Amino acid sequence: MKLLRYGPAGHEQPGILLNDQPVGLPDFGQDYDEAFFSGDGLARLAAYVQAHASQLPPLGPDERLGPPVARPSKIVCIGLNYADHARETNAAPPAEPIIFLKSTTAVVGPHDAIMIPRHSVKTDWEVELAVVIGRRASYVDEAAALDYVAGYVLHNDVSEREFQLERGGTWDKGKGNDTFAPLGPWLVTPDEVADVDNLRLWLTVNGQKMQDGTTADLIFKIPFLISYISQFMTLLPGDIISTGTPAGVGLGFKPPVYLKPSDVVELGIDGLGTARQPVQAYAAPAG
Amino acid sequence: MKLLRYGPAGHEQPGILLNDQPVGLPDFGQDYDEAFFSGDGLARLAAYVQAHASQLPPLGPDERLGPPVARPSKIVCIGLNYADHARETNAAPPAEPIIFLKSTTAVVGPHDAIMIPRHSVKTDWEVELAVVIGRRASYVDEAAALDYVAGYVLHNDVSEREFQLERGGTWDKGKGNDTFAPLGPWLVTPDEVADVDNLRLWLTVNGQKMQDGTTADLIFKIPFLISYISQFMTLLPGDIISTGTPAGVGLGFKPPVYLKPSDVVELGIDGLGTARQPVQAYAAPAG
Repeated sequence: MKLLRYGPAGHEQPGILLNDQPVGLPDFGQDYDEAFFSGDGLARLAAYVQAHASQLPPLGPDERLGPPVARPSKIVCIGLNYADHARETNAAPPAEPIIFLKSTTAVVGPHDAIMIPRHSVKTDWEVELAVVIGRRASYVDEAAALDYVAGYVLHNDVSEREFQLERGGTWDKGKGNDTFAPLGPWLVTPDEVADVDNLRLWLTVNGQKMQDGTTADLIFKIPFLISYISQFMTLLPGDIISTGTPAGVGLGFKPPVYLKPSDVVELGIDGLGTARQPVQAYAAPAG
Repeated sequence: MKLLRYGPAGHEQPGILLNDQPVGLPDFGQDYDEAFFSGDGLARLAAYVQAHASQLPPLGPDERLGPPVARPSKIVCIGLNYADHARETNAAPPAEPIIFLKSTTAVVGPHDAIMIPRHSVKTDWEVELAVVIGRRASYVDEAAALDYVAGYVLHNDVSEREFQLERGGTWDKGKGNDTFAPLGPWLVTPDEVADVDNLRLWLTVNGQKMQDGTTADLIFKIPFLISYISQFMTLLPGDIISTGTPAGVGLGFKPPVYLKPSDVVELGIDGLGTARQPVQAYAAPAG
């Protein structure tokens, strides 16, 4: 299945992609949140869709898509997980995964605006494959780790490089700003992803190709990452792991290139859909 | 008011401290969560308590206290915010606040066990004054920042030093482990805190005084911290800012001293109550 959410920010309704058409689920009655994933919601959703497929209302072409999952308890991101990206940032490939947390207030829909924070001059892009957790995960073995996956989602791990790298301390100042986590268009269940270790992922700015990689180049693979993170913190149903970005971020150019208002970022991953994010100056978000 | 929550982990009910006695609120009907704080819950709670004070049932002496707020969207912690603690960890006092995020799955009640993670040999303590946010805060001016405070709470920012400092990347591997954020006993509203900039805070291990400081020594004060963090991420009602720890953590001893099973940690802050946390080996948490 391909799960989606639609409607005004903060008031999204659940839907799915049915025969390439986004449709609503008028009386399904549950958001895609922790309770949904922990309570076998994907199985109930599949049964609901099968029973009601012919009556599900198509969404209008102008309907906003929200993030395809409700606000998670946490977003765990992996740093420098592609060798070519580590090189372009002058960092050594890590001996074990680098992890950091992204504020969940950064989450927006796939086609929402990226807002450049006030006083920002180094807002950058990062196309990433993200994993949505389906079951509470603590001290999970690598061999069993994929049993904890609800699905996969396209993520732009937007990053402010001055805030991240030049303001002292950890990276968190430049990763959790409002609108810095566009997710979607869809949460795609594992049965619909042919080979998660061999997906092309790309990103353009104003039509120019900036990133063009493949998840085959992930230094640390998804089962290892789930197992690894679960040694340090409990992952809850609906939580997100973002697996890192390939080469081609703005920081890696000589001189660096950063986003400015009226730019347009487009990105995609094989089978997970595409997203289009206009860039604008900061304005108080809705919702 | 002094707000508390009681009952089994994951199923806490709201209560308050009334004339030094914890009492329940049988039909108040709302947990202390984002909706409560954003919806003027403190005013409704005050009115409810005034109307029902004589009928509120006292809690039994063995009733478990939970964290006094529901799981927040985020816990933002400040690193090295006391000069004496910066010195003992061989760090320079920071030029601007160091911030990091603590996984909210770490939150437990004030008297719950601290569980030493598997493979941990450097689990450490940090008594801290934490601030609970009452209103959505984005780009808040320092002069208005205290208007965004719902109250204050005692926090033990438990930290695994090997995971935090020796495993690569940011500090997050050693800060968000299960049970690493005991909160409470109470959320104390600002009207009941005489001078938040002059509170004594202390911590003992097995009865031996390890930390004994005062919030007068905070390098960056609370209004500045709220304003500062809100430049980088939006704070939601119920979110927590933990303001840093004074000298006396285990890492600062020569040689360092760390927690082991059967140790008992006790801590307190003037006017915010005390907490007692037995230390044990990791076991899957309830709730």
